[in-house]
Amino acid sequence: MTTRRLNIAMIGHGFMGRAHSNAFHQVGHFFDTPFTLKRKVICGRNQEAVQEMAARWGWDETANDWHAVVDRKDIDVVDIGTPNALHAEIAIAAAKAGKIVWCEKPLAMNGAQAAQMAQATKSVPNLVWFNYRRVPAIALAKQLIDEGKIGQVYHYRAAYLQSWGADPARIGVWRFNKADAGSGAMGDLLTHIVDLAHFLNGSLSELNALVHTFAHGREVDDAAIFTGRFANGAIGTFEATRFAIGMKNRNRFEIHGSKGALAFNLEELNHLLYYNATLPADQQGWTDLMVTGPGHPYTANFWPSGHIIGYEHTFVATLADFLQALASGSEFHANFEDGLKVQQVMDAVEKSSETRSWVKL
Amino acid sequence: MTTRRLNIAMIGHGFMGRAHSNAFHQVGHFFDTPFTLKRKVICGRNQEAVQEMAARWGWDETANDWHAVVDRKDIDVVDIGTPNALHAEIAIAAAKAGKIVWCEKPLAMNGAQAAQMAQATKSVPNLVWFNYRRVPAIALAKQLIDEGKIGQVYHYRAAYLQSWGADPARIGVWRFNKADAGSGAMGDLLTHIVDLAHFLNGSLSELNALVHTFAHGREVDDAAIFTGRFANGAIGTFEATRFAIGMKNRNRFEIHGSKGALAFNLEELNHLLYYNATLPADQQGWTDLMVTGPGHPYTANFWPSGHIIGYEHTFVATLADFLQALASGSEFHANFEDGLKVQQVMDAVEKSSETRSWVKL
Amino acid sequence: MTTRRLNIAMIGHGFMGRAHSNAFHQVGHFFDTPFTLKRKVICGRNQEAVQEMAARWGWDETANDWHAVVDRKDIDVVDIGTPNALHAEIAIAAAKAGKIVWCEKPLAMNGAQAAQMAQATKSVPNLVWFNYRRVPAIALAKQLIDEGKIGQVYHYRAAYLQSWGADPARIGVWRFNKADAGSGAMGDLLTHIVDLAHFLNGSLSELNALVHTFAHGREVDDAAIFTGRFANGAIGTFEATRFAIGMKNRNRFEIHGSKGALAFNLEELNHLLYYNATLPADQQGWTDLMVTGPGHPYTANFWPSGHIIGYEHTFVATLADFLQALASGSEFHANFEDGLKVQQVMDAVEKSSETRSWVKL
Amino acid sequence: MTTRRLNIAMIGHGFMGRAHSNAFHQVGHFFDTPFTLKRKVICGRNQEAVQEMAARWGWDETANDWHAVVDRKDIDVVDIGTPNALHAEIAIAAAKAGKIVWCEKPLAMNGAQAAQMAQATKSVPNLVWFNYRRVPAIALAKQLIDEGKIGQVYHYRAAYLQSWGADPARIGVWRFNKADAGSGAMGDLLTHIVDLAHFLNGSLSELNALVHTFAHGREVDDAAIFTGRFANGAIGTFEATRFAIGMKNRNRFEIHGSKGALAFNLEELNHLLYYNATLPADQQGWTDLMVTGPGHPYTANFWPSGHIIGYEHTFVATLADFLQALASGSEFHANFEDGLKVQQVMDAVEKSSETRSWVKL
Repeated sequence: MTTRRLNIAMIGHGFMGRAHSNAFHQVGHFFDTPFTLKRKVICGRNQEAVQEMAARWGWDETANDWHAVVDRKDIDVVDIGTPNALHAEIAIAAAKAGKIVWCEKPLAMNGAQAAQMAQATKSVPNLVWFNYRRVPAIALAKQLIDEGKIGQVYHYRAAYLQSWGADPARIGVWRFNKADAGSGAMGDLLTHIVDLAHFLNGSLSELNALVHTFAHGREVDDAAIFTGRFANGAIGTFEATRFAIGMKNRNRFEIHGSKGALAFNLEELNHLLYYNATLPADQQGWTDLMVTGPGHPYTANFWPSGHIIGYEHTFVATLADFLQALASGSEFHANFEDGLKVQQVMDAVEKSSETRSWVKL
Repeated sequence: MTTRRLNIAMIGHGFMGRAHSNAFHQVGHFFDTPFTLKRKVICGRNQEAVQEMAARWGWDETANDWHAVVDRKDIDVVDIGTPNALHAEIAIAAAKAGKIVWCEKPLAMNGAQAAQMAQATKSVPNLVWFNYRRVPAIALAKQLIDEGKIGQVYHYRAAYLQSWGADPARIGVWRFNKADAGSGAMGDLLTHIVDLAHFLNGSLSELNALVHTFAHGREVDDAAIFTGRFANGAIGTFEATRFAIGMKNRNRFEIHGSKGALAFNLEELNHLLYYNATLPADQQGWTDLMVTGPGHPYTANFWPSGHIIGYEHTFVATLADFLQALASGSEFHANFEDGLKVQQVMDAVEKSSETRSWVKL
Repeated sequence: MTTRRLNIAMIGHGFMGRAHSNAFHQVGHFFDTPFTLKRKVICGRNQEAVQEMAARWGWDETANDWHAVVDRKDIDVVDIGTPNALHAEIAIAAAKAGKIVWCEKPLAMNGAQAAQMAQATKSVPNLVWFNYRRVPAIALAKQLIDEGKIGQVYHYRAAYLQSWGADPARIGVWRFNKADAGSGAMGDLLTHIVDLAHFLNGSLSELNALVHTFAHGREVDDAAIFTGRFANGAIGTFEATRFAIGMKNRNRFEIHGSKGALAFNLEELNHLLYYNATLPADQQGWTDLMVTGPGHPYTANFWPSGHIIGYEHTFVATLADFLQALASGSEFHANFEDGLKVQQVMDAVEKSSETRSWVKL
Repeated sequence: MTTRRLNIAMIGHGFMGRAHSNAFHQVGHFFDTPFTLKRKVICGRNQEAVQEMAARWGWDETANDWHAVVDRKDIDVVDIGTPNALHAEIAIAAAKAGKIVWCEKPLAMNGAQAAQMAQATKSVPNLVWFNYRRVPAIALAKQLIDEGKIGQVYHYRAAYLQSWGADPARIGVWRFNKADAGSGAMGDLLTHIVDLAHFLNGSLSELNALVHTFAHGREVDDAAIFTGRFANGAIGTFEATRFAIGMKNRNRFEIHGSKGALAFNLEELNHLLYYNATLPADQQGWTDLMVTGPGHPYTANFWPSGHIIGYEHTFVATLADFLQALASGSEFHANFEDGLKVQQVMDAVEKSSETRSWVKL
């Protein structure tokens, strides 16, 4: 990596294409980055949409054949934001072409595919957009856990609750289509909270799942729930659903350890609740840490303390960390190995639900 | 039942003995009751404690042999607040003696015992102290559900989270003793939230459970988690634990239906959160109903709107409803049949955890 | 005071009569009291209502002439819960008769009257029912302040917001009648938050007020607002209103000092929010202290930690403290001197509003 | 205005310079704007800082003499983010040069100066960066008020509470310097909440203020409080302070009307609390509107419902509205007339505090 400039090709132009484009724009405004990023090519099947997006977000060129894009010599990074079914083929081709590969989650349609992808990208820097690892409050949670502030973890309780899919009559979105999406709430939501669990509490050792579709005729799952055991002895519950009426984007967790506890909710992403159980009993309570600094992860890069950030900033901070790791040669997370690990849990969830039994990981 | 006065014998004198004694005192102050209650005999093994309690709470007499008490002709009601292991024997004896029987939860040590108790009390008015059914906010939730306000239920999510048992070194409390308590978090906490689920959402049809003890050498479970299906098609998660550091008495539920959602937390028992999904999308949000009236269940009996009630009032309202049902001859809930139903779920939880499989109900 | 039993005569039988009667019943159940209380006579003009209340709450006798009651030799305590206009005459007569005197707030119709009352009761034990001083969370706030936990106070911000009087067309309640009530939101609500300010932050030195009536033709104020300076250098804002649509009983304060801050809201009376500004900056946040024990004021007398109490318990704890002080001969607060001090602030509020100028205290 | 491109010169390079630069970058990404913006010149006294900022945020040129910049023919817009003392001179010069003028708040050092500025800019499009008018939740509040949803307003209660200035020993920041800043909490914070009050509730008719400095030797005010009357009959309280320990950026308001109420807090800027007092009494409660769409102001331009935005987006939306108004020739707010109106209130606050009397507006 001798150049200090990275030319990016982005495959995909939907919601995630916007979030990524924004990050490419903003990372240098908020972080000292060792690379400059060039939005070189945006590629997608709907040329009108691609051109509209290129114009709005400052992409130099548009394309509609990702194969050709991936092979271009002037491209350093291939960023994948397509429907899930295309991730593997594009990522593997990009890795073969020696590109840096960034891929949206869920990494793959299943564990086997993810394993191939992880294998293929061993030689290239890679990233999976598990952007919530860089929510400042979650990064702070990680720091507190690593410092031993909550001690031995007993309970891990995670849920990702949405309601946008709760109209049983709604069809025709690619996210409801098994061929494109692979799964429903599982790939879309459960992967996020499983990745966060890996990040914050380590590996799961076994699980027992219930996967359910409420909408008659819908191809993918509407909800997935599992109970699991972690390698560290904790027990956990996970729930992902698109039928949680009243919940817009309630990605939340509660972690109880021997010395304290933590709670988080993505809808209030500037906050982390911390309970210090080592204080005298009459002084214990849930402390609402407004994670906007001073001294909190990432926050010095954004706005003064008390001035909140939003959803999009998590992509910016993820990218900043990647670029820093790339420059220093240190390992970045979440990478394709992390994505694979999540996919293996997804496989176990499917298998457990089908066989109605516990599945070891 | 020709007399308008009920002489009560209470067996037990711990935390629940206090809560019941208070209810016996207070019910007539807040409700128009068709019976007057006489605190006739309090019975327990520790005579010093029993006498102290009799003096403080105005019990006419003390006793230490419950058999003799149950057989007394001048006793109308036997109220059982002993450790769980004694519930069955006392309740069955009391029923045989023709007494009205009130019993703390969990009703029994297991389903078989509960079935015997339910059978034995068929001919006498009976009550299980599932007092949370009469939290005004929960009674309001029931009313809203019955009115169809949340439509078809998709998700039922309940947890009863405490931390008082989270010191692994702590022993010597009867609640940690299998012979006395039968179980741990299951009997103490899980029964409450399963009973509320029955009340609010009907019967479970199958479940898959994980029962766990964190404290080495402790005889009873510290935590019990299960995933289940309801007869009405909803799917549910249940978690009860004494190891939720940071949570004092967090008995909570969230229910998502096709037309709305409800959320409750016992630590804020004067509130019910209601989400009306039939409003225009831009007007939808969680509404914090302060359930202190006007127009809310039970609240006109207590204080003016905005003046909150506490834990103890749930026993008072339970008792008021029982006395009203007794006078009118209508069926009271939760009764021993309801307690049995909960106990059958507990049996299924144990079996599922032991066999690591789904268990039908 | 040689007797260990106190015979009480209560003058008045409305909302406060209920709250007091309940306290007389309950104090011995929750506290070790050096006196037993006898509910001897309840006195009021509406004999039907008085008799109904006597029957429900266990008063031995009813009466309709308070003069006769106050002179009875067998009465130890005169408890006054009448409309405000009668407080002075009854209290002074009771004091002259050597009775212990308990009086509802506002103590008087104005400062001059309150001064007479304070003078008349110098020789007898006395109490003003500023019950909120004994909310456990407020008692804890006082303790934290006295321990120096929030340092030098800069800002004191109090509001008592209700909405029950917000229908401009509503008339005919004694609380809207100047002859009976003396004032509106001022006597009813502002007195409470001024008394709490005295308790928590000491004396006010000057103030500037706006007193307003929204409802045309209503005799008393609907809202009263003032800005003030405290003797300790803090500046404060106070607002009391019956026109705060959406607020049922929002008696709240926020106190900011050099080392920390406190916040409270009566609708969540089991909680105190505490901000410790002496922690490292990245660990600072509002801590939600659930003031139900262990170790918090009064809480050991009620229920186990996490089991909340309600509005009525504040009267119980007030009474327990009074009885303890009476037995030990120590000074009780809030007493008539405290009530007078509040009344002097009310006079200043009226004067300031009328003269549109700052008034010294 | 025949060109579709606007060349911007920004004078100032501090916190606000960042916020403005970000808006200039982002507005076209999220909104369809009738103009493209060119970041042409950034001007400031500290050339190192200016160059660093130009490099980071993509300004074509740097400069250090604002007079020369304002006179450049190729500049369409002069954006002023300097210390307050310079606003007037620059704005008037820019207006004379026929430029579009954008100015940070507070508009001026006093009302007289603001009047000159308003006069000078009559002929040019102008804007004051009262960015909080475009918080989606506040725009929604305005919409609900205009629709009559809260009826006749009785109470308006606003506070802007910060703590960054609460170290009495801290000096040397331009914001503490009277010559540069003109005032302290008044210009910095009080102006924001007064402008929002004008926006949401119309003009104030009179006020009574207390302006206070806690830090010995500090030249500007640390806190300013006032009580006021609105032309529409409402009464209001306003408090701005830098000594509210525990509060980072708590810009909040509560508005109570005859039909409902609204509450907002900038630290949770994606939320508006709405109380609908026209519902049946038992269904009334505070509804937490998560103002991220669908159907809420500005939100369709940002991210899907449930994905929150941050502080910076308020500048983006303000700018988008300005550009739209510029294209259509419609009036934009907040403009210099709005800024003048706020400044007149500030004059009244100062005068009232100095004379200890009510001041008419």
